Order: sequence, then structure tokens, then C-alpha cells
Amino acid sequence: MASSASPEIPKPKIITGPGGYVLEDVPHLSDYIPDLPVYTNPLQDNPAYSVVKQYFVHVDDTVPQKVVVHKDSPRGVHFRRAGPRQKVYFHSDDVRACIVTCGGLCPGLNTVIREIVCGLYHMYGVKKVLGIDGGYRGFYAKNTVHLDSKVVNDIHKRGGTILGTSRGGHDTTKIVDSIYDRGINQVYIIGGDGTQRGASVIFEEVRRRGLKVSVVGIPKTIDNDVPVIDKSFGFDTAVEEAQRAINAAHVEAESFENGIGLVKLMGRYSGFIAMYATLASRDVDCCLIPESPFYLEGPGGLFEYIEGRLKENGHMVLVIAEGAGQELLAEETTQKDASGNKLLQDVALWVSQRIKDHFSKERKMTINLKYIDPTYMIRAVPSNASDNVYCTLLAQSAVHGAMAGYTGYTSGLVNGRQTYIPFYRITEKQNKVVITDRMWARLLSSTNQPSFLHPKDIIEDKVDEEPATQLLDNGNCSPN
Amino acid sequence: MASSASPEIPKPKIITGPGGYVLEDVPHLSDYIPDLPVYTNPLQDNPAYSVVKQYFVHVDDTVPQKVVVHKDSPRGVHFRRAGPRQKVYFHSDDVRACIVTCGGLCPGLNTVIREIVCGLYHMYGVKKVLGIDGGYRGFYAKNTVHLDSKVVNDIHKRGGTILGTSRGGHDTTKIVDSIYDRGINQVYIIGGDGTQRGASVIFEEVRRRGLKVSVVGIPKTIDNDVPVIDKSFGFDTAVEEAQRAINAAHVEAESFENGIGLVKLMGRYSGFIAMYATLASRDVDCCLIPESPFYLEGPGGLFEYIEGRLKENGHMVLVIAEGAGQELLAEETTQKDASGNKLLQDVALWVSQRIKDHFSKERKMTINLKYIDPTYMIRAVPSNASDNVYCTLLAQSAVHGAMAGYTGYTSGLVNGRQTYIPFYRITEKQNKVVITDRMWARLLSSTNQPSFLHPKDIIEDKVDEEPATQLLDNGNCSPN
Amino acid sequence: MASSASPEIPKPKIITGPGGYVLEDVPHLSDYIPDLPVYTNPLQDNPAYSVVKQYFVHVDDTVPQKVVVHKDSPRGVHFRRAGPRQKVYFHSDDVRACIVTCGGLCPGLNTVIREIVCGLYHMYGVKKVLGIDGGYRGFYAKNTVHLDSKVVNDIHKRGGTILGTSRGGHDTTKIVDSIYDRGINQVYIIGGDGTQRGASVIFEEVRRRGLKVSVVGIPKTIDNDVPVIDKSFGFDTAVEEAQRAINAAHVEAESFENGIGLVKLMGRYSGFIAMYATLASRDVDCCLIPESPFYLEGPGGLFEYIEGRLKENGHMVLVIAEGAGQELLAEETTQKDASGNKLLQDVALWVSQRIKDHFSKERKMTINLKYIDPTYMIRAVPSNASDNVYCTLLAQSAVHGAMAGYTGYTSGLVNGRQTYIPFYRITEKQNKVVITDRMWARLLSSTNQPSFLHPKDIIEDKVDEEPATQLLDNGNCSPN
Amino acid sequence: MASSASPEIPKPKIITGPGGYVLEDVPHLSDYIPDLPVYTNPLQDNPAYSVVKQYFVHVDDTVPQKVVVHKDSPRGVHFRRAGPRQKVYFHSDDVRACIVTCGGLCPGLNTVIREIVCGLYHMYGVKKVLGIDGGYRGFYAKNTVHLDSKVVNDIHKRGGTILGTSRGGHDTTKIVDSIYDRGINQVYIIGGDGTQRGASVIFEEVRRRGLKVSVVGIPKTIDNDVPVIDKSFGFDTAVEEAQRAINAAHVEAESFENGIGLVKLMGRYSGFIAMYATLASRDVDCCLIPESPFYLEGPGGLFEYIEGRLKENGHMVLVIAEGAGQELLAEETTQKDASGNKLLQDVALWVSQRIKDHFSKERKMTINLKYIDPTYMIRAVPSNASDNVYCTLLAQSAVHGAMAGYTGYTSGLVNGRQTYIPFYRITEKQNKVVITDRMWARLLSSTNQPSFLHPKDIIEDKVDEEPATQLLDNGNCSPN
Repeated sequence: MASSASPEIPKPKIITGPGGYVLEDVPHLSDYIPDLPVYTNPLQDNPAYSVVKQYFVHVDDTVPQKVVVHKDSPRGVHFRRAGPRQKVYFHSDDVRACIVTCGGLCPGLNTVIREIVCGLYHMYGVKKVLGIDGGYRGFYAKNTVHLDSKVVNDIHKRGGTILGTSRGGHDTTKIVDSIYDRGINQVYIIGGDGTQRGASVIFEEVRRRGLKVSVVGIPKTIDNDVPVIDKSFGFDTAVEEAQRAINAAHVEAESFENGIGLVKLMGRYSGFIAMYATLASRDVDCCLIPESPFYLEGPGGLFEYIEGRLKENGHMVLVIAEGAGQELLAEETTQKDASGNKLLQDVALWVSQRIKDHFSKERKMTINLKYIDPTYMIRAVPSNASDNVYCTLLAQSAVHGAMAGYTGYTSGLVNGRQTYIPFYRITEKQNKVVITDRMWARLLSSTNQPSFLHPKDIIEDKVDEEPATQLLDNGNCSPN
Repeated sequence: MASSASPEIPKPKIITGPGGYVLEDVPHLSDYIPDLPVYTNPLQDNPAYSVVKQYFVHVDDTVPQKVVVHKDSPRGVHFRRAGPRQKVYFHSDDVRACIVTCGGLCPGLNTVIREIVCGLYHMYGVKKVLGIDGGYRGFYAKNTVHLDSKVVNDIHKRGGTILGTSRGGHDTTKIVDSIYDRGINQVYIIGGDGTQRGASVIFEEVRRRGLKVSVVGIPKTIDNDVPVIDKSFGFDTAVEEAQRAINAAHVEAESFENGIGLVKLMGRYSGFIAMYATLASRDVDCCLIPESPFYLEGPGGLFEYIEGRLKENGHMVLVIAEGAGQELLAEETTQKDASGNKLLQDVALWVSQRIKDHFSKERKMTINLKYIDPTYMIRAVPSNASDNVYCTLLAQSAVHGAMAGYTGYTSGLVNGRQTYIPFYRITEKQNKVVITDRMWARLLSSTNQPSFLHPKDIIEDKVDEEPATQLLDNGNCSPN
Repeated sequence: MASSASPEIPKPKIITGPGGYVLEDVPHLSDYIPDLPVYTNPLQDNPAYSVVKQYFVHVDDTVPQKVVVHKDSPRGVHFRRAGPRQKVYFHSDDVRACIVTCGGLCPGLNTVIREIVCGLYHMYGVKKVLGIDGGYRGFYAKNTVHLDSKVVNDIHKRGGTILGTSRGGHDTTKIVDSIYDRGINQVYIIGGDGTQRGASVIFEEVRRRGLKVSVVGIPKTIDNDVPVIDKSFGFDTAVEEAQRAINAAHVEAESFENGIGLVKLMGRYSGFIAMYATLASRDVDCCLIPESPFYLEGPGGLFEYIEGRLKENGHMVLVIAEGAGQELLAEETTQKDASGNKLLQDVALWVSQRIKDHFSKERKMTINLKYIDPTYMIRAVPSNASDNVYCTLLAQSAVHGAMAGYTGYTSGLVNGRQTYIPFYRITEKQNKVVITDRMWARLLSSTNQPSFLHPKDIIEDKVDEEPATQLLDNGNCSPN
Repeated sequence: MASSASPEIPKPKIITGPGGYVLEDVPHLSDYIPDLPVYTNPLQDNPAYSVVKQYFVHVDDTVPQKVVVHKDSPRGVHFRRAGPRQKVYFHSDDVRACIVTCGGLCPGLNTVIREIVCGLYHMYGVKKVLGIDGGYRGFYAKNTVHLDSKVVNDIHKRGGTILGTSRGGHDTTKIVDSIYDRGINQVYIIGGDGTQRGASVIFEEVRRRGLKVSVVGIPKTIDNDVPVIDKSFGFDTAVEEAQRAINAAHVEAESFENGIGLVKLMGRYSGFIAMYATLASRDVDCCLIPESPFYLEGPGGLFEYIEGRLKENGHMVLVIAEGAGQELLAEETTQKDASGNKLLQDVALWVSQRIKDHFSKERKMTINLKYIDPTYMIRAVPSNASDNVYCTLLAQSAVHGAMAGYTGYTSGLVNGRQTYIPFYRITEKQNKVVITDRMWARLLSSTNQPSFLHPKDIIEDKVDEEPATQLLDNGNCSPN
């Protein structure tokens, strides 16, 4: 099976067309394995599909990354549309697939697992699907579990992942050895940006060894920090669930004199959950995210704003993404030595303490601050209906691609369409809230909080170059 | 104010460009009123926006209707991107806006009302906003209510519409008289396709009279039957809420011998809610929608399928959109005379009765059928977080357009971007589930129900002509 | 095993004491089987219980039926307190228990099943527990399923009953034959008043045959119509879930001119759910229950009241228990012949129609009536936390009693204490809302609805005689 | 008005009867004010009540504290039954009532406020009701708000308290001055044990001054630590809401290797919420409460148990009441000096750290511990349906008592009946989980956790003396 391998990292497959059209294509098994046999897609004989004439995706279907265009603007980057192909590169009986989940929990993980298993089984008749237990390290450290449509039948109604998960544990050689030893030829890897980077390296090693193994990534990030794609699965559910914490913070704040409700939400590097939860709630007076630096003291600072809100309204609600203000915190920490490192690493606790100190000591005001951290309660809920449908389509798209011989891609939604995106586009950077964009302006306008920015700080968007990614107008995230 | 009116219906404004680019533009007050004064957008001085350099939408920004493209395909139809413009055609102090809600309830109505009021006030400093009470007829039959940000502050947490609503009651002349008499110059009309047709006629009369009045439609349709747009607000919430009914039907069915749970869902002409609720649930064995004709008896019919499921699985769950099988029902009604008209008009009750009769009389099988109609319980819930954000952006887009002097448009989401769509595109036809498309195939594959179609019945999609609209891969609805 | 059977129905076991004390005791296996061996309760060696000195219930513990007393009032009827006894009449290895669920669904069924199984296993080490499939008829018509703590582990999170259920199907001889043939010696029967009557007959037959079989009833009635006990399990959950329907009815009513929201709730003979749901909601303007006759036309009638509310408030919400106004309906039906029997049997649909007719034809008023029937959506939800705890204690009490050799009893809560109640007290009559009592007065005061009563109609309570049962002040149901 | 005051603390009013009957009666205005005018209860003319013959509570109605009795046991302590009296001591027009809420939030506060206002208005025609803003100190520090049925109409659907609340701030003289100055003659005080002690002192001062002012306590304690009463309002809602956190902890624990989910619940001195939340969930492996001392290391300790569960089951869930293990923590703190005081005061954080240290350092095991503190999310939710009904009856009972001239009492549920309890019985001690009682044994049996008790530690219950209070078998709390 392993034959003429190309040792170096494969080059991007770029195809160009008229009007500035660019297609950033994904690798294919036939790129490095010659003379692969091709089969008719068994879906052709599936009664559910047989009546759908236009069922198979046209070989030339692509989706633009940019949909805000001018009459004469170049057509720009496109991705290959996901979906079933007329021809497949695996015989169903020969497929031996495996699924692994890595990193933190996210609503929808079980739905994705379920739909890969059911998709392979019901659409392609594939019966051999293994679950890798406990993340990447499960490839070589543990036994696998057999997955079939009976095992996964009700799992979408539960939070978490039935496969278990873990962070780290990535040893490429051992993983690819394990893949080879077990005879696996389709690998579905569900995880965040680190995990996708790992998938990319696994793909390269598989290709180097010349193995007929499709390596497929499914982006999982509750923070929505994966670039290019509109929105990550579980995001809607997370924003919905975050409303409970914000509501509670609001009730607590309203019921006490100078009440401050402070909610910490997920978002290590990207403040999307905090931003959308704030926009959805309308009870939040200030939202702090990693992308928007802030300061506490002096004119235009947080303390001044809080004092104003308390005087005007008697109470306020603050939402802080976990990664906000890290530079501020780092600064303080070095200044103040090792007095309480542990505490200081949590920005929300640190801000809480600073607010309490400021008002009790400097302003002699009694405040009532209540701190809520709903992180694990949000992560662990089952996905809502909208995410269930999304996970289903994402999983089915991943399966169609692997069956069609594509590899080294992440299955992802671009402008509302399922596409295949080459790994390097997913891993090259993180998706972040663009604070000079209109969505953040909407938030500022909704909360009336200060921008914490001086006009000189504003970086101009370079609109016609590499587009900064941003959640769409409907709550999707995509190039703007 | 009323001057040189053009009596005939205005022609579509079509602008073309290279590569087959077509822009279907929306009317503007300056189209028929010469020499309108122009003002600087007050947002320029809003602290929330002042730091956002790229805040204003570029005058040439447009959004394509079609995003699945080939390397060499023509660029096709585009719509004008929504958003704030550098120049506005109303001085904030002169604006006198009104809002009306028409037709049935839909989650999110109050959020849209809230955000129009708050958008006008916070972004543009507009203080005169009237609520029209009880639908179109409220224009001439009732007193209006004054709306400000205090009145609307918490209404997004409640279902229904604080303005009240009604069906019908559209008397164009009286409505435009009332608009003129009250000095209203921005009219926000929230309603379904009938309502949008009404808005279109109001716009034409306003234009005929030469009034400086922006007429803006906001599409409200829990059935998702408005064309062109990705998805209507409240749709996600409705699909979510429908899960409760399906879960209950599943539990009832499982607990009794030959248990059948039958859920009626909304969808007079379009089966989107039924289709998505079915896909999200995974407990449904058969989904019947208006777009897919079915038959009861004989091979491949519903009775045969039900009997099979009961024998194999002991129970089953059936979802029926209210508009499904109307042709079948009409046929029966004439055959059977006026014995029980009332009952027969409700397809779900009628199917229930036919199933009961079939199994008890013809098959001598005891079945336990439970019928659930959650319609009003779904319509009346408040919108979820995702719909809240969507409604906010929709309302703000509507406001930006009116302030910029656009009129005769519906504010709508196209491929994840807020756009302005000319009325005629919204009213020319209804959005329907395309049963020869892949989303319906996915449903068939998920339920394993018969297609009720003979291969000869299949109508071929005309892919390269006028695109049939369809929910996007992520649950949005848009040209495919 | 079968020996000296007493053919006649056993007499009540009444024990009296000083101050008017009366104990209505339950039967015991030793009543009709002499020389039964007695064992030490294995709980004695259970680490969980070994530290609890007062763990075993004192042999003389009883609970009064009446807790509103005067200084010199007689002490009245008492029931035997439930709980573990120092001595048991079964050796754990010899126990062969079975569980059957009968009648309609009720939240908590699965929790009761789970806790009987886990109680027998964890407390007494009993491993042989059978589930009877599909109600009484499952005793002779079907295979049984083996139940252990693994099978039942998560079932309390699901609605319905994993055993299946059915109505009727009671053939005493065949059931007792089946019990005998299978070697079953503990029978746990979960069901409503009809089911408890069946249990009573089974017990009598078992006793007649002289079998060492404990027959235990667990009262299941979502309508709360079982007498003596404070409250039936699932009742709290049902009242909670009913709030959704009432909220929806309120939103619908508020949003339309002359909007009327009409909610049908369970309650064939007893209006407890309707009454408590109304009291909990505060949005209901009128609540109609079987116990309180009403009339439509004329002064003090329903139509007059509705018209008043619509004129005063613009909308109204009506709650109707399914058994309300049956006498009215029966009357109409005979008058109007068999024109539409089906429809007329449903009082809520019938009232809807009569309201519509009255206002459109006689009063020429346009009304918007929305009818909601959430019955199956309420029945099918899993029990809430409070009902989960209640079901647990109920099931454990049932188990302790059977192990201690008691039989022919229903396990039930009396004044907040678990007790054993002889079957005849459970089956002799139904629990009903006493409309001359204060709880109903509270409801009238909360809704301001007419009493539909003429002072001459009022039946005086006979306070010191047989107490009418009534939900306690905290929502429990018990003798007043 | 202020006349012949008795300076000393009033003696309990004890009335005895035959069979060991004891009534612990509550004070009455006529105890210290002679010749008070008496009025006919206006409820007599209320149409809602006029048809209820037995509406008024009999003057001799009392409720026993103890309902588990023997044939010949003494009848014991009784409390006066709450409810409307034939005669009242206030003319409705003369009533000037005030309501104050003190201490932390609890679901149901707004319902109690609503129902006092509506009860006074609808039942007695009282229109002058003041809300004291922000707890006790609001009596002299702030303006009051006028409360009527319009203001309070929808507040029961919101969490928190519309009056605001605070801790402390009790200056008896200033409060009674304020009561006198404002002409208030009915004071409704909603709060926990500290607040009730304050109410008691206010009552004594009012009595000392000879004022015609009824002082009424309504027990509010989410911890359920108020003695005598069955259960505090909001408790059911809190236990329900706690399930979310436990579910999340379970999902997190299951998804990671050696996953430990640790949930902190309320319960400073009483572990009722933790115990009931554990019993309701069935996913908890260990529950630690203040009443049950535990230890970490060595045989029978927590670490050993955790290690066993992880080895056997792979994960575990731990619930800790906030007041658990304080003695352990205090001990450690002094040993370890001031290294990290802040952290150590929170027992759940401290236990988390100790578990992590133990397994990583001593056992070299990788564990994944997730800590969830849902306290504020639980406190801030609106009350559920069951608590809504409870709060209604509690508030109405409080009102009936004050109108009837009773004072110095707490309105409370005893054995399912509303009663009036003298303050000294409420404040003399706290209600605690009795760990030698059966409910705790049930918990131990359900979790299989160690008892952390040596047989020698067991304190015998003194059953026939002063009864230890305990939640009833149905989840109520009452003398056992």
C-alpha cells in the first residue's frame, strides 16, 4: 500500500479562473497514490436519494469566501463545496473508520459522533467504525470501542462525548503506526485549532508513508476561534445557555444596593461568546473581551464607568471573557510579586477583587458584587435543535468527502454552505472579534460602555486584502 | 409635499456589470422626489462608532443571491447590502416613524419592535415612534401608542407582540391617508407574504402621491415561506420548541402497544418547520409536508409503512405539517359529502381518523394513537438567544435603510448578510421545500420513510436558471 | 403453599385506643398463613444504616388522618407508618418480585420502577425482579423482562414507563395463576383507582388461595383523584408543565383583539390540576372543574363573565378540566341528536364552539379564540426534582412493607408521612376538590370568576364526620 | 396610642388540654391594649367566599407538631391554625401595612410580596401598602414605594425581590420610630433566622411602647434552616435548579479520564439542599454537609473513597454544602498560617485543592477535577409552580393573622397546614439534617459513600423528648 511517498510538506493546490477567481483546493488520495480504483457511489441505489435527480454535487461547485462584493471586484478565494460525489474511492466493505474527540467539551460532540456513524452506515453501508477512547492518546494507549447505529442512537440527547476526551497526548508517529496497525483508512478528528494542527501533521505523515487513509478534521471550538468557517457547532447552544447566567447576574445586581453582577464566559483568545451573549441579552452594561484592551483607572476607565452606572441606575451587569485583559493582569502580577499568583490568573476574579478594593477603599462606597462562572454548565449541555441540524450536515459532509477520496481537509460551513477547507487555512491563525468592525460597534452601542480606545489606536481595516474573519450578520462567522 | 407623482407601478431598478453581474436594486425617495436635502449621518458622532473606521457600508457593497459557483459561471443576481450610510435623507428631529405587526404570532416580534425603537433612538436620536395597534386596521381604526426605549425595555423577554396584531384589514387609501394625516414618514411593516404584498401596495400609493415616506417591510413568517431570504426570524426558536412535542409523542408512543405519536406542526404551504424539527429530533419515523404528496393505501403508501414500523419497532412517531395532503383531503371531502367538513379541514385530525379506521376495521390491530398540536405553544414563546441577535440586526438594518432614503424594500438576510430586497422579489412566489433537493433526501434517509414518489414524477431542477430557494446547509434558506 | 384459605372478603382490621384513637390497619401475611418464619432485617448490617440508631420504625408508629384538631377533639383515624421493620418475613434470596404499570402516563413512573428495583437490591439484596410488559394483561399475554440496577439506572430521566402500560385487561384468575406459576411472591402494582381496585381483587384471590404473596399498590393518578393521600406523584410536575400552556394562551390572548386563550387540562372527575395550575399562574381569568357546575347563558353565566372581561381587559384566559360541565354537555347532546357526538364529548372543544357561536351570532363581536390541549405534553415529561424524591420514598416504603410481610395495602403519603393504607380506603371513593372549602374560595378570589352557585345550592360540610379530602395548604391532598 | 407598656419580655402563652395537649399560642394585640374595637371580617361579603360556609377558621383549630404517634402517646405541642377569622381587629381603611425583605435572595420573594399586597387588597380592601427599600435599614434610610396590585401584577415571574434587600442594618429603636412616624400598623418581615430574631425584638419594642401594630414574620431561608416549619418557600425550586449543576458535573466527569465533578451548593449550617439535590439526581457519588463531619485521609476517608470510585467507575460526582467541613478547614488554616486565607475559607475550593494535591503528588494519578458553583444561578431564578402556590398561601395566612389582631408570630407550614408560630420557637435554634435519622441513611444508601462515623460517635435520638426537626417523608421539614 505504501509506495512512492513525497517526503516534503505538500504545496497548496491553487486553481485560478477568470475575474480573479481562486480555488484553494484540498488534497486527494490520488495526488500521491496512482491508479486508485474508483467505484460508483452506493447512494445511487438508496431509495431516499434515488428520486433526487440533482443529488450529487457537481464536480465544479465551489463557494466564495467573500460575499460582500462590488460590481467590478475580483471574485477572490473559493473553497470546494462539500457533498456526495458520483464516484467514490472506497468500497464500502473495505472502509474501516475511526473517530476521536479532543480538547474541552462542546455541545454537539455526541451529535457529530452519531451522525458520522449513521452517515457511514445508512448512506454508504459502512459497518466498521471505531471510537478512539479519550483523545489522541487513545490511539496508542487504550482499547477502542465499536460504534454502530444502535450504540449511538440516543447520544445526541446527552452532553459531553461518549468517547471521552483529553488535551495533548499527540505523538504523530505512534498515532500513524496505530492507524496503520489497525487497518484504519478513514480518520475523523473532532477538535479545536490545536487538534486540527495535529490532524494536519498526521495527514502529512500518512501522505509521507503513502497510505490510503483519508484524514478529516471537524472543527470543534466553543470559543468560535477557528478561522474561515461561519460559526462552530455548539456556539448557538452556548450563547443560549449563557443567558441563564446573565439573567441571574442581573437579578442579583438589581436586588442589592450598588449591585454588580459579574459573569465570566468562555473565550481564551476570542470574545465571540461574550459578545453574542451580551447582544442577545440586553441586560449587560459592559462586555470585556480579549480583543479589546481596557484599563481600570482614570478617565474613560472601567472604574469610572461602573461608578457612573451605579449612580445612574443603581446596579450593573458585567460580562468578561476569560482571556480579556491578560496583558493588564500580567503587568500587575510582575509588579506585585508572587502574592497570589493562583488568583491572579483568573481575570474575572482579579477584576472582581480590584473593583471591590477600589470602591471600598478609595471611593468608600458599599458595593455588592456577585461573581458567576457558568463555564462547565454551558459546555456540558446537549446541543439545541439548531446545532443538532448543523452537526448532522457537518458530519455528513465530512463523510462524503472521505468517501470521495479527499483528505487533509476540515469540513466547514462557509457562507452557509458546507465546504472542504485545506488544513493550512484553518491552522494559520485564529478567528477573532474585529473591534473596528460593525458588530463590535453594535455591542458598544447596545451597552453604552466606553470603547477604551483612543482614536490614534485604531487600526484601519485593509478591506481589499486578506479579509478579517467575522461572524456573519446572522450570527455566523466568515470573511467579511 | 405631494408633487409630481408617477401613476404607474415603478419598474424594477436593474444594474448590470461585468461577468454577468446583476444588481436588483431597491427604490429610493430621490427616485421620485427631486432635490431632497441630504444630511451627515449622526452616527459619525456616536462614541460607539467613532472608533470604527470602516463603519459605514460602502455605497457599492452588494451580496450575491447565489454562492455555489463554478470557475466560469456568470455572477448572477445581487442585492444591496444593508447598513448605515455616510449620508442620510432625514433629519433626526423630523422623523416620525410607525411600526405595525400583522398576521399570526411568531417568536421575536417584540425583539424586532424593541430594536427598531432603540435603533432609531440610540443610533439616530429619533424620538417620535408610534405603535399601530392591532395590525393594518389599526392605522385608521384605533389610537396609536407612543413607543420609547423605556416602554420597550424588557419586551424581548415576552412572547407575542405588544402592539397586537390581526389578519386582513388592509384598505390602502385609508392607510396612506392615515400616514399622511399623522405626519408619519417612516413606516415599518412586520408581517408575512400577504402583509408584504400590502406593504408593496402602500409603497406604490405613497409614491403615486409623491410623499416623502419610507415604506419598509420586515419579513415575519414562522413557516419560513418568504423567498430569497436565508431564514425568517423565530424559525430557530420554533424548531427548538417543536422538539418538546416530538419528545412527548415519542414517549407516549413507546409506552403503549402499537403506540403512534402524531404531531401537527405549522406549515400551510411550506414544510420547513416539520422538516427541520424532524432532522433535529431523530425520533421521527415519518414527516409529511405540503410539498411532498403522499397516499394512504396500497404498496408504498402510508398505511403500509406504519404497519411495517409497528411490527418492526412496536411504535412510531409521525410529524405532519398543517398543509400536507390537502389535495387528498379535498378529494375525500367531495366524495364523502358534507358529513363532517369541520373535522376534515384539519389534515392531522383527518389522517388520525383514517389511521384509526384502517387499523381497527381493516387490519383488526389495536393501535394507540396520540395526537399533539403544539402550534400555539410554539408561536407564543419568546425568541431564543440566536433569534434575539438575528432580530436585532434585522431591525437595525431596516432602520439604516429608511434613514438613508431607501424605500419599497424588505430587509432580509441573504447568504448570511443583511440586504435590502425589492418588494416584488419577496411577493412573487413562496419559498418551498424542494423535494428533489438534498435536504429532503437527508430527511428521507434519516426517517427511512417512503418517498411516495414514482421516478416518473420527478421534476428536474433547472439548475442554471432561476434558482429554487432552499434553506442553507446550516439551516438557512437561500437560493441554492 | 396454598392451604387453609378463607373464602369471604376479609374484614377491616380496626384497632382502637384512648381519646377516640382508631387505627385502620393493613392485612399481614400472618393473618392467614400460620407459623411463617421470621428473619432479621438485613438492613441491620448495611453500613449506610448501621450508624442510624433509630433507623427501624417503631412497631406502634401511626399517623393521624386529621391534623386540624381542637383541644378536646377525638383523635380519630390513624394509619400505620411506613418504613423498615426490625423483622422481615422474606429471606432475600427467596424473593421474586414483579412490577406492573397500568393506565395513562404520569411523570415519575420510571422513577418509581427504578427505586423499587434499587430499593430491593441495595437495601435487601433482592436480585430477582421482573417487569410485566404492558399493564395487567402482560401477566398472561407477554414475556416479562428482567430488571436490575443497571437496566434502570438512567430511566428516571425519561418520561413514560419502560415497562409499557395499557388500560383494562384485568382477568383476576389468570393473573393470580400467572403469579403462582412464575413463583412470584411480591407484586408491586402502580396505577390509578381502577388499577387499585384490581389490586384489591388480586389480593383477595391470593389470600383465598392462601399464597404467601404480598400485593402492594402504589397510587398513580395525574388527576390527584386518589383519596386519603396528600398528593399523588407527578402532580407537581404536571402543574409545573401546565404553566407553559397557560403562558402561551395568555400571550395569544393578549396579542389579538378580544383574544381568548382556552387551555384544556387533565381532570376527568377531579379538578386539582386545573385548580393548582390556575393558582400558580395568576394569568387565568376563569377555571372550570368537574366539581363546580357552571352554566353558559344568562346572568351569572360564563358568557356574561367573558364579555365583561373582554370589555374591561381586552382579553382573557380560560382553563377547563376535561371533566368539567359534562352534565351540561350531556343535556345538549340529547337535545341536538347525534349530529356530532365525537366533537361534543370533548367539553373544551364544545365550550370553544359555543363561545364562538355566542359572540359571532348573538353579540356580533369578533373574538379570537385559541384552543390549547397540552395533555400529552404534560403526561410525557420526566418528573421534576421534587417528584423524584417523592417517588423514591414512596417506592422504598412499598418495599419495606412487603418485606415486613404486610399485604393488601397502598403505600401513600398522609400528612407528610409515608403510611400503609388498606385497599378499601383507597377504592371506596374518589378524591375531589371541595368547592365549599377555602382552597376553591382562594381560586375564586384569585380569578374573580363567578361561583356559578346560588346560596341555596351550598352543601354544608360535615366537619366532624367523615372528613372530605383536600389538598393540604402546601399543595398536598389530605383529609381536612 | 402608646399607653400602658409592659417593659419585660412577654411570657409564652401556653394552653394545655386533656391527653397531654399543649398549645403554644401567639401574642395578640388585645394582650396589651385593652378595649380594642372589633369588626366583622369583610370577607363575609366577598362573592368568592360567600358561598363557602366553612370558610372561617374555627377559633379552636390547632395543628400538632408531631404526627407520628402511638396509641397511647401524649398529644404534645400544637400551633394555632392560620386562616381568616370571623372578627378582625382592623378596619380596612385604617390599615397601613409595610413589607420588607432582608438577607440573601430566594426564589419566591416576589410572589410573597405580590400575594401580601393582593391579599390585603382583594380580600380585605386594604389599599395602603408600603414597600421598604433595601432591607431593615430602608426603614430609616430610604424612601418607601407604594405597592398596589398593578405594580405587583407580574413580579412573580421574575427572580429576586423588587423591594431590594440587604443584610444587617437593624436598629430597633430607629425602626420602631419609623413605623410609628409613618403610621404603619402592620409590618410584614420576610427573612431568615437573623431577620426573624430582629422581628422578634421589633415586636417586643412595639409591645413595650403599647403600639397597635401587628408584627408578622415570614420565614425565608433557601437553606431550609428555620425550625418547626415543614419546608421553606423556594426550597423546591432551589433543589430543581441544582440539578442543572449536578448534571453538568456528571457530564464533565464522564467525559474525562478520572473525571471528578464537584458542585458546591448552599447550606451554611444545614445541608438540606445538598441532601435533597443528591437524592433527586441519582448521579452523585458523595454528598458532604455541615451536619456530618468528614475526614480526608486514611481508611474510611474521602480520598480513599474517591480513589475507589475512580478505579471502579472511571469518574465521580461530589456535592459539597458550603458549610461542610468547616472544623477541618479551621484546623488546617491555623496549622498552615496565612498562606492563602482567602482560598481556604471556601470549603469547596479547599477540598478541590486538597484532592488535586493528593492525587497528583501522593498517588501520581492524573485526575480531571471540574468545580461548579451555581449558588447565584439558583438563588436568582423565579419560583416554580409548586413554590408559587406555597408562597400564595403563606402570604395570605400572614395577612389573615394580622387582620385578626395576632402579632409576634411567624407564618409557617406545619404538617402541611398553615399555622401561626410564636417567634421564640423560630429563633431558638436552627433546623438541621439529623444524620442519625432515616433520610440521611437513605442518602448514604443511595450514594454508597462512607458515613465518616464511628459507631461510638453516634448520638442517640431522644425520640420522646423535644423532637428534632426533619424534612418530612415527602420533602417537607417538620418535627419527626
